[in-house]
Amino acid sequence: MKFTQSSLVVGELATGQALSVPVFHMPAKDSAAAKVFIQANVHGAEVQGNAVIFQLMKQLEQMDVQGEVTLLPLANPLGINQKSGEFTLGRFDPITGVNWNREYLEHNIDIASWYQQHHHLSDQALIDAYRIQLIESCHAHLNSEWGVTTGKRLAVTLQSMAHAADIVIDLHTGPKSCKHMYCPEYDVESASFFSIPFTLVIPNDFGGAMDEAAFCPWWQLSEYARSQGHDLAVAVSAFTLELGSQERIDMDDALNDAQGILAYLSHRGVVAEKVTAAEMPRSACYLKDYKKFHAPAAGMVEYKAELGHMLYSGKPLANVLRLDRYGTDEEFIELTLQQNCVPILHFASASVYQGTELYKVMTNLFKL
Amino acid sequence: MKFTQSSLVVGELATGQALSVPVFHMPAKDSAAAKVFIQANVHGAEVQGNAVIFQLMKQLEQMDVQGEVTLLPLANPLGINQKSGEFTLGRFDPITGVNWNREYLEHNIDIASWYQQHHHLSDQALIDAYRIQLIESCHAHLNSEWGVTTGKRLAVTLQSMAHAADIVIDLHTGPKSCKHMYCPEYDVESASFFSIPFTLVIPNDFGGAMDEAAFCPWWQLSEYARSQGHDLAVAVSAFTLELGSQERIDMDDALNDAQGILAYLSHRGVVAEKVTAAEMPRSACYLKDYKKFHAPAAGMVEYKAELGHMLYSGKPLANVLRLDRYGTDEEFIELTLQQNCVPILHFASASVYQGTELYKVMTNLFKL
Amino acid sequence: MKFTQSSLVVGELATGQALSVPVFHMPAKDSAAAKVFIQANVHGAEVQGNAVIFQLMKQLEQMDVQGEVTLLPLANPLGINQKSGEFTLGRFDPITGVNWNREYLEHNIDIASWYQQHHHLSDQALIDAYRIQLIESCHAHLNSEWGVTTGKRLAVTLQSMAHAADIVIDLHTGPKSCKHMYCPEYDVESASFFSIPFTLVIPNDFGGAMDEAAFCPWWQLSEYARSQGHDLAVAVSAFTLELGSQERIDMDDALNDAQGILAYLSHRGVVAEKVTAAEMPRSACYLKDYKKFHAPAAGMVEYKAELGHMLYSGKPLANVLRLDRYGTDEEFIELTLQQNCVPILHFASASVYQGTELYKVMTNLFKL
Amino acid sequence: MKFTQSSLVVGELATGQALSVPVFHMPAKDSAAAKVFIQANVHGAEVQGNAVIFQLMKQLEQMDVQGEVTLLPLANPLGINQKSGEFTLGRFDPITGVNWNREYLEHNIDIASWYQQHHHLSDQALIDAYRIQLIESCHAHLNSEWGVTTGKRLAVTLQSMAHAADIVIDLHTGPKSCKHMYCPEYDVESASFFSIPFTLVIPNDFGGAMDEAAFCPWWQLSEYARSQGHDLAVAVSAFTLELGSQERIDMDDALNDAQGILAYLSHRGVVAEKVTAAEMPRSACYLKDYKKFHAPAAGMVEYKAELGHMLYSGKPLANVLRLDRYGTDEEFIELTLQQNCVPILHFASASVYQGTELYKVMTNLFKL
Repeated sequence: MKFTQSSLVVGELATGQALSVPVFHMPAKDSAAAKVFIQANVHGAEVQGNAVIFQLMKQLEQMDVQGEVTLLPLANPLGINQKSGEFTLGRFDPITGVNWNREYLEHNIDIASWYQQHHHLSDQALIDAYRIQLIESCHAHLNSEWGVTTGKRLAVTLQSMAHAADIVIDLHTGPKSCKHMYCPEYDVESASFFSIPFTLVIPNDFGGAMDEAAFCPWWQLSEYARSQGHDLAVAVSAFTLELGSQERIDMDDALNDAQGILAYLSHRGVVAEKVTAAEMPRSACYLKDYKKFHAPAAGMVEYKAELGHMLYSGKPLANVLRLDRYGTDEEFIELTLQQNCVPILHFASASVYQGTELYKVMTNLFKL
Repeated sequence: MKFTQSSLVVGELATGQALSVPVFHMPAKDSAAAKVFIQANVHGAEVQGNAVIFQLMKQLEQMDVQGEVTLLPLANPLGINQKSGEFTLGRFDPITGVNWNREYLEHNIDIASWYQQHHHLSDQALIDAYRIQLIESCHAHLNSEWGVTTGKRLAVTLQSMAHAADIVIDLHTGPKSCKHMYCPEYDVESASFFSIPFTLVIPNDFGGAMDEAAFCPWWQLSEYARSQGHDLAVAVSAFTLELGSQERIDMDDALNDAQGILAYLSHRGVVAEKVTAAEMPRSACYLKDYKKFHAPAAGMVEYKAELGHMLYSGKPLANVLRLDRYGTDEEFIELTLQQNCVPILHFASASVYQGTELYKVMTNLFKL
Repeated sequence: MKFTQSSLVVGELATGQALSVPVFHMPAKDSAAAKVFIQANVHGAEVQGNAVIFQLMKQLEQMDVQGEVTLLPLANPLGINQKSGEFTLGRFDPITGVNWNREYLEHNIDIASWYQQHHHLSDQALIDAYRIQLIESCHAHLNSEWGVTTGKRLAVTLQSMAHAADIVIDLHTGPKSCKHMYCPEYDVESASFFSIPFTLVIPNDFGGAMDEAAFCPWWQLSEYARSQGHDLAVAVSAFTLELGSQERIDMDDALNDAQGILAYLSHRGVVAEKVTAAEMPRSACYLKDYKKFHAPAAGMVEYKAELGHMLYSGKPLANVLRLDRYGTDEEFIELTLQQNCVPILHFASASVYQGTELYKVMTNLFKL
Repeated sequence: MKFTQSSLVVGELATGQALSVPVFHMPAKDSAAAKVFIQANVHGAEVQGNAVIFQLMKQLEQMDVQGEVTLLPLANPLGINQKSGEFTLGRFDPITGVNWNREYLEHNIDIASWYQQHHHLSDQALIDAYRIQLIESCHAHLNSEWGVTTGKRLAVTLQSMAHAADIVIDLHTGPKSCKHMYCPEYDVESASFFSIPFTLVIPNDFGGAMDEAAFCPWWQLSEYARSQGHDLAVAVSAFTLELGSQERIDMDDALNDAQGILAYLSHRGVVAEKVTAAEMPRSACYLKDYKKFHAPAAGMVEYKAELGHMLYSGKPLANVLRLDRYGTDEEFIELTLQQNCVPILHFASASVYQGTELYKVMTNLFKL
């Protein structure tokens, strides 16, 4: 079965032209099966998720799909179309600087009082009511008297669609990066289905990103229910996949990642076919152990450490060339770290200011 | 007496060139007199504060200055030098999008335990010890193992100097704006000295800006001391002045604002001369009543409401021209608000996306 | 009669979304009457022309329009929607830096040989054949084997429409500017119809802009015909109007400029009504006497000279504040010029690099 | 012998800070030996030339250097320090859009009359006089009454130094690129010394770049002398080397390119040691056969053709993914060319507007 295509309006450009996102939809065969929402390219330069969605559609068209699937590639038209020089300047609103992926809504529901009003419901009815509450909260925010910012309108419009799903996957990439993913602590075993070797285990609370916006309200509800002696599973799973480097389309690699997503969807019964996870070593670390290393000096940077491989303490991470200091011992600075780590990503440019975030590295890794 | 000039290094450009800020200094005649720290132009396009500092120096050179004065114009060289087209793109780090004025450090001191260790000291000794604590906290942050971002290095370096002062004034401007200032709730009567008709009364807590970074730790200390039965005045005063519109140098108007600052410094005994505040009606509102109005539709904007004047409910705020809707009743949209307000500033450009922050308006104003 | 609206596709954004320009059209009552093409906002920040087109439409709807009128406001959707910070970065292609108004096509027709083939035709038939030649040349360029750049596609698509008209008007603005216009030397008396006090008299040759692209081929044809003893009037008139400052919409002032355009159209018989030109002193200078003054030093700039008024030799043009040179005679630099001039426009920002184009001034003015 | 370091001021930032370029200098042992001028990084993102200069200095320090050597890495501090998002926006002036490498001065010397005045001189004296003329022409331009633009000041300041040399090498890179170089037609055999497999043979005339600015006046002089029956060799050699991709520092590869430059300098007698050129197949094409292929449609781009390898007619160049056209035969567009070529470079980003310059390819190649 083919996906049907529609269009979601998320804003207006200065010329009046509507900003719209293509929405691909396949209805549920089994209304009890998990519903899926996948978006890609909220950061403008992180394009590979579109290729993954394309490959996923090509696969799903041929498969026995039980649950409703909604796919939004090209989810941030303003960010994607914002060039500055030869690259895409799509990480933040060009007017305000606000990161497009920090604009999702924290609902601030008074869970205790909400639960008191609804705890007489069956689990399914409770979940349905809560879901409606989340979606209405999004709509109320979008219609607030003083208006909302461009970024908020985009994010909360996407979020209101995501809240209708049981599985939410947000496809990103790093700058220059190996594949890794963000997975909430309560759901860490799900990370082993995706074709991704490194996992960041994140706390179960809200930091502004889509995955957190999707699962946090549900985790909070479950926590509160448990505190009331009611064992209610977290109803929504949400992940952010970082599919390698930005500014790169690779259709073959996109197929690998589509297979990984299918393995997870198969596990969850969204597709009837059995799709098994790729075999690979998988490691993880806690978010608190994911370290940002900032350039201690400005200069021209030769990136040396191989991404996705263990870098032992004292081994070369990067070199900084400082021609202005020719003839001194600072003309060529070798940067090392004082502990073992796995470099996951590095800055995209080969010249940096002092303080530029040069590398992100995982420390204190453990096997999944 | 002339000011002496030195240079504060706040970072390094990719070429290796040091980023430095000129520092103008006049020593104290009376070490008991209040110390003053004034900076300008942390946002790159907000240049008028430099002219105010210039005029202030010309005045102070001729006056009997009791307290130490430290002035940092051009405080953000990276932001000031960052052009994009014909304007200065200096509101946020061009790499990360982070607002230069949201990078100051929240110290997270455990005040209860700190107070237990120091409450035996005299008030002056207590204040001195706390001040050293704040400055050391800044230095520790700057020297953290994993480095700090470019913006953090700038902000915390400035902050470590500001913490040495008793009076901290941060000179900004709006985009297209009338003059207004931010004043903490506990210190609202000080607003009447400056040559500024509108005051935003802000809560006594930290939001990331310089003024908050300067006074919050002291307000917290005073609050805690009071809870222990010790009446300790808030030792530091801090204000942000918004000196009209960005991208504008006006030397005559700078002299007016320099006079307003001198009136406050005179009140505080920093200068021996009596300088009286300019007479003008002064109004204020609480920060919660300072509303951002976002463009409900994209288009070409004719700004109609006069800044700094009461706009009555239903009166024209702005018009939006939508040529793409020619012939419909949306070709020309008149925007109004449903309550009385004073528009304080509006967006700098005459074309907007949907959701652009079009106006900031004060509501529920009261006389100062 | 109302204008009909259609849409001209001029490119595609990275998301695939079509870039389109609204086209407003009123057919000719009298096919012999001059045809008019007016576009606005090819530079993204120069929005006032849209308001002028709006006012023009409101007037023409009520008038007896003889000639075909085609209006393209919002003519550069890519430029208009390109924000960088709070302003519109729409002067050049953000990827390549190429000025959007330097991309029109020079046809390089071999006029001698073309004329030999067509000189047997009647003047009208000759003009029709040449017009077709120009339009086909545009289309051939757009369809070239190796493709064309984004800016070329936009410009040549607009140009192919403009070539169908007898009167071509391109609506721009300066940065901070008084009203002025560009008028070819052979057509200088036309400048007195528009509501614009200053005229730049330009040579009759091609420099890349729309007005030149529109009239040059016709002036070349007339010149060649004259050299063959055939007195053929230049068939096409083309002007660029600079409607004050960028980033400004003023509906009342737009009506003034619409009236000026109507006065010219009335003179040309496009409208049956008699519309007379506004009375005002009008001055002009030759393009070679239009001087660009570049900032001799960097710094904060106080613009002093009033735009559109005579500035006598040695009188203050602008001041440059250099706080880094406090205490020297370069702390505040007064800039003057060594000859009388009328400053027409100045740079938009109040801080400049050394070499920034600070002012454009007319010298050697004469009355029109 | 070590190089000595000095500093060349090329402008001023808005804060007043001087823009300066480090200059490394080694004096001549033999004043008759050819003088060398090498600069790098005039385009901000093209950093690898700095590494090549560093490696070259490390080599030359150990060698017997006969001719004067002047090296300017980091030659465009404004461009290098201009970030926009994670990449360097250093290809054009951020204010005007003007390409930093199109600002060099065309001298417009009246060669016939100059030659008449000087032809009585010996060849060496003639060359010396002409060199002084070129340098003075640069200085006159820099001191013109109305000032010069920021980009002109940088370029002409560099050019005035380059004119003092007999060998001028400008180190650039492509966006994503294999190594290639620009070589004037009259000097094509020199291309075989550098470690660069592909050469663009350019006409002997001025297009605005440094290499052309350096050799054109000399070629013109020689041409004119020849027309007067005087066989005067072109006194200056100039090349632009494109050292692979931008935003990349690779010290090992820099050593390869330093060796190639040394091979040429050895051939020219600048170093006494015999350094032989690396053996590799070398091909060339004429500039007219160097084709720019523009994206026929917008979309997400998978670059397929391997840079620096023959691509046969009809073979896949790149794919364009168009999710908005899912389900049609335009959902995935395979781009091919209709002739054999060698793709030399492609666009840096994986998403493009319609018309983006996607590839540059050499056609009609021949062996060197």
